[in-house]
Amino acid sequence: MKNVLGCVCVSCGKETGAEVDTTTCPSCGGMLDVKYDYAFIKTKLDRQSLASSADFSMWRYLPLLPIEEGSELSPLRVGWSPLYKADGFGESLGLKNLYIKDDGLNPTSSLKDRASAIAAVRAKKAGKNTVACSSTGNAASSLAGNAAAMGLKSFIFVPERAPKGKVAQLLVFGAHVFCVKGNYEDAFRLSAEAISRWGWYNRNAAINPYLMEGKKTVSLEIAEQLGFKTPDYVAVSVGDGCTIAGVWKGFKDLYALGLLDKLPRLISVQASLCCPINRAAETGNAIEKMDEDTIADSIAVGVPRNGDKALAAIRESNGITVNVTDDEILSAMRRLGAAAGVFGEPAGAAGSAGLIKLAEQKRIPPNALVVSIVTGNGLKDVVNAQKAAGEPNFVNPDMASLSPLVESF
Amino acid sequence: MKNVLGCVCVSCGKETGAEVDTTTCPSCGGMLDVKYDYAFIKTKLDRQSLASSADFSMWRYLPLLPIEEGSELSPLRVGWSPLYKADGFGESLGLKNLYIKDDGLNPTSSLKDRASAIAAVRAKKAGKNTVACSSTGNAASSLAGNAAAMGLKSFIFVPERAPKGKVAQLLVFGAHVFCVKGNYEDAFRLSAEAISRWGWYNRNAAINPYLMEGKKTVSLEIAEQLGFKTPDYVAVSVGDGCTIAGVWKGFKDLYALGLLDKLPRLISVQASLCCPINRAAETGNAIEKMDEDTIADSIAVGVPRNGDKALAAIRESNGITVNVTDDEILSAMRRLGAAAGVFGEPAGAAGSAGLIKLAEQKRIPPNALVVSIVTGNGLKDVVNAQKAAGEPNFVNPDMASLSPLVESF
Repeated sequence: MKNVLGCVCVSCGKETGAEVDTTTCPSCGGMLDVKYDYAFIKTKLDRQSLASSADFSMWRYLPLLPIEEGSELSPLRVGWSPLYKADGFGESLGLKNLYIKDDGLNPTSSLKDRASAIAAVRAKKAGKNTVACSSTGNAASSLAGNAAAMGLKSFIFVPERAPKGKVAQLLVFGAHVFCVKGNYEDAFRLSAEAISRWGWYNRNAAINPYLMEGKKTVSLEIAEQLGFKTPDYVAVSVGDGCTIAGVWKGFKDLYALGLLDKLPRLISVQASLCCPINRAAETGNAIEKMDEDTIADSIAVGVPRNGDKALAAIRESNGITVNVTDDEILSAMRRLGAAAGVFGEPAGAAGSAGLIKLAEQKRIPPNALVVSIVTGNGLKDVVNAQKAAGEPNFVNPDMASLSPLVESF
Repeated sequence: MKNVLGCVCVSCGKETGAEVDTTTCPSCGGMLDVKYDYAFIKTKLDRQSLASSADFSMWRYLPLLPIEEGSELSPLRVGWSPLYKADGFGESLGLKNLYIKDDGLNPTSSLKDRASAIAAVRAKKAGKNTVACSSTGNAASSLAGNAAAMGLKSFIFVPERAPKGKVAQLLVFGAHVFCVKGNYEDAFRLSAEAISRWGWYNRNAAINPYLMEGKKTVSLEIAEQLGFKTPDYVAVSVGDGCTIAGVWKGFKDLYALGLLDKLPRLISVQASLCCPINRAAETGNAIEKMDEDTIADSIAVGVPRNGDKALAAIRESNGITVNVTDDEILSAMRRLGAAAGVFGEPAGAAGSAGLIKLAEQKRIPPNALVVSIVTGNGLKDVVNAQKAAGEPNFVNPDMASLSPLVESF
C-alpha cells in the first residue's frame, strides 16, 4: 500500500507499520489510526480524476483507502448513497440548507457496509477464508453480505436482543450466527476469544483500525456531492464511536489533500440513557460504562470500544453533543419519513432527532449548510417502526365503512 | 410531451391522446399503451448523451418517459440499481454469464419506486395534492415515499394480509392507510370507488398506462449497464403483469431507437398456486381467476389487471413460463443471499427461483447472457426471511458453550 505510511496510536502516539488488521498499540493497547501519504495520494486523486470516474461506489476513493494493490474488490455496490436536499424537512426546522445522506440504501441497508467491504477485501487478500465479528446487527449483516458476495465464510456473534429482521438477513447471507445470551459486551468478548482461537479475520471495528477507513467514505461522498463544499454541521448517531470517528477522518483527509478549505462541526447524537461518549465529552471525565437502555439498538453500546477516537473527533471538530430520548427518536423517524421520504431505523434517525432538538433550541443558524446522516434502513427494525408509525385504519370493503374515515382527515 | 404521440389500446387497437392517466380505452375498456416518437427521441437520447449524463437515476432516461416538460421530478434516487455479475451463483447453476439486478436498493426498497415516481411527478404537474392506490404493499410504500418527498398526501388501500413491515413503512411516510378486510381484489375495487368519488390521482398500475413506463427503466438500465448488449434471457416474477410488461417495453424502446440489435426472451415466473398469467400463456385460454395462495405476497394476484400486456410480452418475446412453489422461493432466497450477497423478498427472489428451475432442467444454455431481476428487498418480509433462513445458534457467553458448535461446522 504505497498510500499508507503506517499507523499511530491515538493514546500514546507510538507509530507502527501498516499490517495491523487485528492489533491495537503494541505499547499501550490503545486504538491505532491509519496515516496516509497525502503527497502521493494527490498524484492519484483530485477533483478531475473523481469527475471522470465511472465507479459510483466507495471504491472511487481507492487511493484514500487501506487496500493492497491488486486486491479483489467486493462486487456489491457499497457507498455513493444519495444525498437529498430536504427542503420540506428543513423548513419545518427553520433550516434553509438541510441535506439527508441516506445510507440505508447500501447493499445490506446500513452504513456498516462501508466497513465490512474493507474487511472482506482485506481478508481475501490475506488469504483468509473466514471472517468474524460481534455486532448489534448491522456490522454483522453487512459482513455476512459482503463475505457472501466474495465467497468467504462468516461467523457472527450478536447479543440476544438483536432484532429478528437483522438476524434473518444475515442467516439468509449464509452466515453462521451465534446469539449470545448476554449484552453487546458479552458478544464482543466471546467473539474476541473465538477469533483468537481459530484465526479468523477480525472485523471488530474496535480492534481493526482499517474499518473506520471504510466508514470515512460517507464523508468523502458528502463533500463531493456538495461540490467540495464543507458542511457547517454534520449530525450522526454515535454508539461504539467508530462511525463518528470515520466521518471526521473523511473530512480531515480531504482537507489534507486541499480539496476542502475548512472542516465541519460534528453533532454527536446519543441516546439519553446510553450516552457514555457524550457524557465524557461534556464532563471531561473518562468514559464510564452505562446501561444499554434505548430502542435504538445499533447505538445501544454501554462500553464504547472506539470511545477515544470519537472523543477526539468531537473535540477536534468543536463538536456539539446532544442526547435524545426514545420518544424523540420515534418522532424523528416519522418526520424524516413524512417530510423527506426517508425511512430510517431508530439509530439511523437518531442523528436527525438530535438535529431537530438543536434546531428547536435555535442552536443552528438558519443559513447553515447541514447534513444529517441516516445510518440504517427502517425496514431493519419493523417493531420500532410500528411504534413510530401507529396502526393503519381497518375498513370493510365498502364505501359506507370508508367514507367517514376519509372525511375525517 | 413532444416525445409522446399518444396511446393505443392493447385490446382493440384504437388510438387516443396522451392525457390518459386515469382511463382505459374509451371504446372497449382495454389497457392503453403509450406510443413514442422515436425519431424525435433519437435527437435527445443516444449512447453519447447517456455516457455524459451525471444523473444516475431513472431520470437519465427522461426523453423516453411520459413526463411533461418542466415537471418537478421526485427528489428520491429511484433507479440505477446495481447490476451484479454473480459468478458464484451462476457457477452453481452452470451459467457462465449470470447477472443479478438488485432493485431492492431503490429508495423504498422495491422496483415499484420506478412507477410511483412517475405517478408522483404527474400528479404534481396536474395540480393534484393527493395520490392513491391499492397494493399488496410495494406499490403502496413506494407511492407513500415518493409522495412524501414531493409534498403530496397519499391514501393507500392494502389487503389485510399485507406484511407488517410494508404497512409500517408506509405509515412512517405519513400515508393514510386503509387495511381492507378482504383480498387484493377487494382493496383494488374499494380504491377505485374512492378515487372516483374524491378525484385523487390514480396510481393503480392497472388503469394508469404511464406507470409501466416507469417500470421499463429497469430494462433501460440493464441494457446500458451491459454496454448495450441484449441479454439472452431476463427472468422476472409476475403478479399483476405490469412489471413484465414494463420490462419488455424498455427493451423494445431501445430496439426501436437502434440502441439494441435484438430483443431478449423473457422468463415469466409465477407462484405454482397463483399463476393465472402463465396458465393462460401456456393454454392459450383467457386469464381466469386463481386463489392467492403463496408466501410471495407481492405476486399473489388472483385477478391480474395487466394480464393482457403481460401475455403480449411473453408471446412477443418468445418467452418461457415457469411456476415455482413456496419452498422453491425460500430456497432461492437462501441461494441468492449466500452465493451473491443479495437479499430478496419472496416475490423478489421468485424470478431467480424460476431461473434455478430452468437451469436445473438444462433449458438455459451455459453461455447465455442471463439477467435475473430481484424486485424487492428481503427486509420487507422478515417473517418469510426467517422461514428461509432458519434459526441462529443460541450460546452462553463462554467458549465451553461455543466450541462444540464451531467445530461441528
